[in-house]
Amino acid sequence: MATLKKIPAEDGKVYFSYGDIHQSVSNLVPKLREEFQPTVMIAIGGGGFIPARILRTELKVPILAISLELYDDTTNSIRENGVVCHQWFDENSEPGKLVHGGNLLIVDEVDDTRTTLQYAVEMVLQKCHPAKVGVCVVHNKLKPKRGWFPDGVSYFAAEDVEDHWNCYPWDAAEYGRTIEQHEELAKTCSNT
Amino acid sequence: MATLKKIPAEDGKVYFSYGDIHQSVSNLVPKLREEFQPTVMIAIGGGGFIPARILRTELKVPILAISLELYDDTTNSIRENGVVCHQWFDENSEPGKLVHGGNLLIVDEVDDTRTTLQYAVEMVLQKCHPAKVGVCVVHNKLKPKRGWFPDGVSYFAAEDVEDHWNCYPWDAAEYGRTIEQHEELAKTCSNT
Repeated sequence: MATLKKIPAEDGKVYFSYGDIHQSVSNLVPKLREEFQPTVMIAIGGGGFIPARILRTELKVPILAISLELYDDTTNSIRENGVVCHQWFDENSEPGKLVHGGNLLIVDEVDDTRTTLQYAVEMVLQKCHPAKVGVCVVHNKLKPKRGWFPDGVSYFAAEDVEDHWNCYPWDAAEYGRTIEQHEELAKTCSNT
Repeated sequence: MATLKKIPAEDGKVYFSYGDIHQSVSNLVPKLREEFQPTVMIAIGGGGFIPARILRTELKVPILAISLELYDDTTNSIRENGVVCHQWFDENSEPGKLVHGGNLLIVDEVDDTRTTLQYAVEMVLQKCHPAKVGVCVVHNKLKPKRGWFPDGVSYFAAEDVEDHWNCYPWDAAEYGRTIEQHEELAKTCSNT
């Protein structure tokens, strides 16, 4: 896959519009259908919620949500390999049952250090009995990863991106911007 | 609140852009802070995922996800007042514990018949012991409702809208459109 060339803004950060994210996710759909045939998605909240919701319209499979939080070593919180699990799902509920023997697609916003994703994959393999496990992210940051995936796990990144600070539209307020201001800035980062 | 005047497109449907949704949700934040002070959000999946994720950046409270599906009377599925619960959360987990004694904001995309929202409120009141329960939707359709809320439940709609067929950007593919085509159409429905 070619690396998505976005030009950092003056502050060194790269701004993505809702249109950028939606289009990237949508472009990945044919590949997901051909190579993986997901039967259920597991969205890692909150980052995975938006891509999973966009994918659902096209893939027409249910979304189960989990909530994981990455802690660094300076935090005194309970942790397991640096990750805290805030929410899981009931594997015996409908459509929790779909995970057993299903093609399970774990969805998140960005693959940064891969630590959270590794944890999610391991939890899924431990608790469920899927036919296949796949990982799907909007952006894969091209950088050394701390986490890794066991053999047989499929990997789908809508885009490979350089290792910049990414600013997503849902976080516009974090940077003191309205969505209109954010989207304008995203345009200046676009290569098209 | 003034009703949001959007002009239906030629097909009679009203198209909303990501910017429309984000801005509406964002406009509601000061009111949510002043009148409700949420301590945790409960997003009804999949519709509530996107507004909840946008709100999280501003409210800085965790999101728990639930999955409810509304069935009409012709469906043979297991149901309870027409609603099937696919996913709940563990009230004893972190931050599941926040629901006990917390200000709990249930988040969804649209308040149509109010059936699913009523079910969510009742489940929350039954299973958790919140200090306050609030309901927050992007759009409240101005129409007779089948569901209702118990006394003391706060209600926040980012916008009141007329009873048209709403098309949301994450569903662009449902109507055979790219996000770019959808966003163009949404502009034609805008009153600004």
